[in-house]
Amino acid sequence: MEQNKLEVVLTPALLPLYEAHGKIVVVIDILRATSSMCVAFHTGVTKILPVSTPEECRLFKDFDFLCAAERNAIKVQGFDMGNSPFEFQNPLIKDRNIAFTTTNGTKAIKAAKEQGAAVVAIGSFLNLNAMAKWLVKQQKSVLLVCAGWKDKYNLEDTLFAGALVNLLKNDFTIECDSALSAGLLYETASANLEAVVRKSSHAQRFKLTSIHEDDVQFCLQHNTMNLVPVMQGEYIVCPSQVAV
Amino acid sequence: MEQNKLEVVLTPALLPLYEAHGKIVVVIDILRATSSMCVAFHTGVTKILPVSTPEECRLFKDFDFLCAAERNAIKVQGFDMGNSPFEFQNPLIKDRNIAFTTTNGTKAIKAAKEQGAAVVAIGSFLNLNAMAKWLVKQQKSVLLVCAGWKDKYNLEDTLFAGALVNLLKNDFTIECDSALSAGLLYETASANLEAVVRKSSHAQRFKLTSIHEDDVQFCLQHNTMNLVPVMQGEYIVCPSQVAV
Repeated sequence: MEQNKLEVVLTPALLPLYEAHGKIVVVIDILRATSSMCVAFHTGVTKILPVSTPEECRLFKDFDFLCAAERNAIKVQGFDMGNSPFEFQNPLIKDRNIAFTTTNGTKAIKAAKEQGAAVVAIGSFLNLNAMAKWLVKQQKSVLLVCAGWKDKYNLEDTLFAGALVNLLKNDFTIECDSALSAGLLYETASANLEAVVRKSSHAQRFKLTSIHEDDVQFCLQHNTMNLVPVMQGEYIVCPSQVAV
Repeated sequence: MEQNKLEVVLTPALLPLYEAHGKIVVVIDILRATSSMCVAFHTGVTKILPVSTPEECRLFKDFDFLCAAERNAIKVQGFDMGNSPFEFQNPLIKDRNIAFTTTNGTKAIKAAKEQGAAVVAIGSFLNLNAMAKWLVKQQKSVLLVCAGWKDKYNLEDTLFAGALVNLLKNDFTIECDSALSAGLLYETASANLEAVVRKSSHAQRFKLTSIHEDDVQFCLQHNTMNLVPVMQGEYIVCPSQVAV
């Protein structure tokens, strides 16, 4: 039997070059959308609705959603939450629905869905091993899509893609150079991951805004939760049947 | 005085996200267009005209050009040359003009010019040190543009970008994550460059076509020539004043 393929898409701008139909697309926005989503489900959120704009996001307040909006690494004024994982640890969000819009992550999630992915899943270092085990069980080809920064490449998303590549290399056919590079990068950086990521443009951006000092460290923790959020229709959910 | 910037563009599909006006764009197609162009000038070619299609390329036969055309790693039938560096070592090409079309390299060169680069230069491992010294002298910001493979990322072009980044990091401000990653990748792979590149999708493609066995090794040689080809109008030339 032919093995399923694993490919890495380094930025959403390159997604149109790849075939997504029938595949699982794992969306990766380590700093911070997909990390925060994992935290939200770990805290007990019911479902998350990714939306395109803060304006659209605000509409869902009328339907008893919590509304989270981030632009350029900063919480948009007047919203319940921004995009820091610590905000999603608040026990008050348990059993609530969240409408969520971010600069890169929610955009990549919507793009993956529009391009016909069979399943869209949410990856972060926090659920790395759970994601790897779940992907092996699905018996489908996989695209790892890095959300990047405004369609440009970023380091931390690629490092996570590389971590997954290295866990999955015996279970998938991996022929693409992006996957090969991501795997090499993670191998090189893993002993010193935080220092490498702190050099990145995104972490530098956090430094300039003088917030989220601890977010980088938090989002680089490996395997703190055993869950795999996936899209069902327009929502991201985390049903027990996909937890591993 | 503020330092000039150095950025790495991982595929031509991402070039529209970058400002090219007033900058030097170094086009990189290690396997094999920009390596072969360096060889051609080393052999004594007068000028190279990058063209978009084999049909357009063929027209220049009437004007006493040699015509070189490659598609999908194979020489197009009926042309004087394909894209192997060994073909450009033939002393018969000395003082001739060449019209040249390739799958990725010539396309990236034309894209860089259309996007308003002040200067387009031709980089390869063969002229790595010459390129680094020349770039420092120009006192302009620099984009390193990897030609990739059909707009997708490739490993060998990124490794060369990383080699240049590592040579230039004290002379330029380097803030972009692609440059940081490329530098790390080259640092990791350089001791074993040929083995790493032979794993790449492009080298695998060569293997399948059973040709160019020696091209990979040839194109990974460092600093075998002391020249910097640049565009002047529609042509690539290698005037003595830019040699270092």
